[in-house]
Amino acid sequence: MLKNLYAIKGGITAPKEFIAGGIAAGLKKGKLDLGLVHSKRRAICAGFFTSNKIKAAPVLLSSSIINKPVHRAVIINSGCANCLTGKKGLLDSKLITRRLAGLLGVKESEVLICSTGAIGKRLNAKKIISALPGLIKALSIRGAKEMAQAIMTTDTYPKQIARAFRVGDKEVRIGGVAKGAGMIAPNMATMLCVITTDADISKSTLKKACKEAVDASFNCITVDGDMSTNDTLLCFANGASEVKIEPQSNIYNKFVETLTQVSLLLANLIVNDGEGATKFIEIQITGAKTPAQAKKVAFGIANSNLVKTAVYGGGSNIGRIASACGAPDVDIRQNRLDIYVNGKKMIKGGIARSIKGSGNIFKRKNIEIECDLKLGKASHRVYTCDLSPKYMKINAEYN
Amino acid sequence: MLKNLYAIKGGITAPKEFIAGGIAAGLKKGKLDLGLVHSKRRAICAGFFTSNKIKAAPVLLSSSIINKPVHRAVIINSGCANCLTGKKGLLDSKLITRRLAGLLGVKESEVLICSTGAIGKRLNAKKIISALPGLIKALSIRGAKEMAQAIMTTDTYPKQIARAFRVGDKEVRIGGVAKGAGMIAPNMATMLCVITTDADISKSTLKKACKEAVDASFNCITVDGDMSTNDTLLCFANGASEVKIEPQSNIYNKFVETLTQVSLLLANLIVNDGEGATKFIEIQITGAKTPAQAKKVAFGIANSNLVKTAVYGGGSNIGRIASACGAPDVDIRQNRLDIYVNGKKMIKGGIARSIKGSGNIFKRKNIEIECDLKLGKASHRVYTCDLSPKYMKINAEYN
Repeated sequence: MLKNLYAIKGGITAPKEFIAGGIAAGLKKGKLDLGLVHSKRRAICAGFFTSNKIKAAPVLLSSSIINKPVHRAVIINSGCANCLTGKKGLLDSKLITRRLAGLLGVKESEVLICSTGAIGKRLNAKKIISALPGLIKALSIRGAKEMAQAIMTTDTYPKQIARAFRVGDKEVRIGGVAKGAGMIAPNMATMLCVITTDADISKSTLKKACKEAVDASFNCITVDGDMSTNDTLLCFANGASEVKIEPQSNIYNKFVETLTQVSLLLANLIVNDGEGATKFIEIQITGAKTPAQAKKVAFGIANSNLVKTAVYGGGSNIGRIASACGAPDVDIRQNRLDIYVNGKKMIKGGIARSIKGSGNIFKRKNIEIECDLKLGKASHRVYTCDLSPKYMKINAEYN
Repeated sequence: MLKNLYAIKGGITAPKEFIAGGIAAGLKKGKLDLGLVHSKRRAICAGFFTSNKIKAAPVLLSSSIINKPVHRAVIINSGCANCLTGKKGLLDSKLITRRLAGLLGVKESEVLICSTGAIGKRLNAKKIISALPGLIKALSIRGAKEMAQAIMTTDTYPKQIARAFRVGDKEVRIGGVAKGAGMIAPNMATMLCVITTDADISKSTLKKACKEAVDASFNCITVDGDMSTNDTLLCFANGASEVKIEPQSNIYNKFVETLTQVSLLLANLIVNDGEGATKFIEIQITGAKTPAQAKKVAFGIANSNLVKTAVYGGGSNIGRIASACGAPDVDIRQNRLDIYVNGKKMIKGGIARSIKGSGNIFKRKNIEIECDLKLGKASHRVYTCDLSPKYMKINAEYN
């Protein structure tokens, strides 16, 4: 009765009974900057927040209410992160969720909030509050697209995706929207992301499923190694599919698989749209002693400016990958190290090989790097992008 | 009888009985690429090597003989790192030191070797060996300058310095030469550096003094967070000053102070000449619980691409410094954090302040960042540079 998962159209409003909208509230000149996702029926939410010790006001507010039993909506603004704004900033976030709850006819604690944009500036709560009636009016199934646009900062395109699987004659849908581009480093949902599903699932089971999906997706990406103050992932479930997800069942496994695919696709969209990125890099460490060792080496390579600029340049400076392998504080053996780039063995037993046609191996758009440490059986995979002069330009000018 | 230290002319040949030279051996087209430092009398050497697990052949060879009692010379080539070259690479290094020892009339184990340049290519040992007689002929007190040029890779200028102090009517001199520019991250002498002194000091005391100097200088700098496979610091002492340095004496303290100043000046020259650098950044963390916490936060900021691009851009994105403060896995308190830029308090108790004229605080050539964590009394200082599009260009094209 359980079939393979498949792609469906749309994003966060693909699951039943979810609506969304995005409008221009005037935070960013002439651009969509305020988005809302709303479940028309009772829903629950699992949330993951940045582990940065500097937390933005919306992170402080949303994380303080995430353990409540019911959540019906999340409002997200771009143009201002509402971070380093102290108690006043926290009050700004509260005033917005309070007013929005009133207008939606739900409890204040049922409304979550996220912000993204420059750090260190007060949020214009007044502008947002006066825009709320218009935002609610914009809510619809079609509004997912505008919502995806409203949360963009340095993103060059909106990121939404949806997948589904069948259980008998019923369908479970999962949709997602994300923003990324810069300040992307792995530690619990390093960006803003909202996922919706019409699965019928308990809060504790949803949290467990999300944790599995996040660890295999958002926690495996890095753009620049910088961890944001506003990172949040929220996953809403409203039960509208009438498919019950019991823990440790086949349906649960299919749910996690689908949730992981939605998360991984969004994560890869974020890396693909990394600030200034021209290439997508997949790094796999195999033969590690432990998963922790594999992860450390993988991120050591993924966050190496020298590796990322070498890939951008399109040359063949394979030595930088080996050097990055050896730099982290993990016990690897130089004379066992094999490194493959797009399937070609470039380093064997710690010795660089000269291979015909390898001079321009970094010229491709997609680069797969595999480092076999030959020490054990653990592995880890991460995704990143190259580092180009455009990253500098974007971030030198962004205030 | 002990006077303040003072500047003297020259570099590694400023201390008595040291001579040096640099020639073009043909490794780099038309450029000086082979340097030699030699003590005309018996000398000892303390050495520090990269902690990267991928170690170049010259690092393997030099570190295997560094505990021998006597060292008289070091030969350094640029143009090739002799790394990822396996046993053949190690043999190449050995053939060079063996032949050089014969020509100098010293033991093979008295000759150390360093290499710098691209990783993953065999060293042309034949070219170097046939150039050795010419290199020995070039040895002189004046040759320090050519030696400093011969070890440059992406450096834009040679780096040498000398300091001295008086003990009665005698003078102790310390000279140094270094190369840096890229792949600079702190962990035991992250570059190539040779220091010479005519102090009369035991090997164990010299090692202790060097450790103190290195921890306060080379281990406090970062350009790009990438640790090289070839990093080596060698400090030769030949006793020609006839000033005996006994441990735990006033003269020892003055020796360490002078050695630290020479090291710090060379370290700062490396940062100043960081690949593509346009600005010098000094980061001080105060009020930390422990020195380890202060160091972790300091390097978190110094290695943040977003902080470095913000400083390059010259804007005022102070939030990125706060975000970088909170990102490492250390327990800091958001509401206690004060951040000063060039003396101006930009963040107070975790709240960004708008201060007149602060909009272009990053426009200066020298940026001083102080973060007071208000948790304890420990502090740490690190030095770095900004990240500019030129860094990308240099490293995209370097093979």
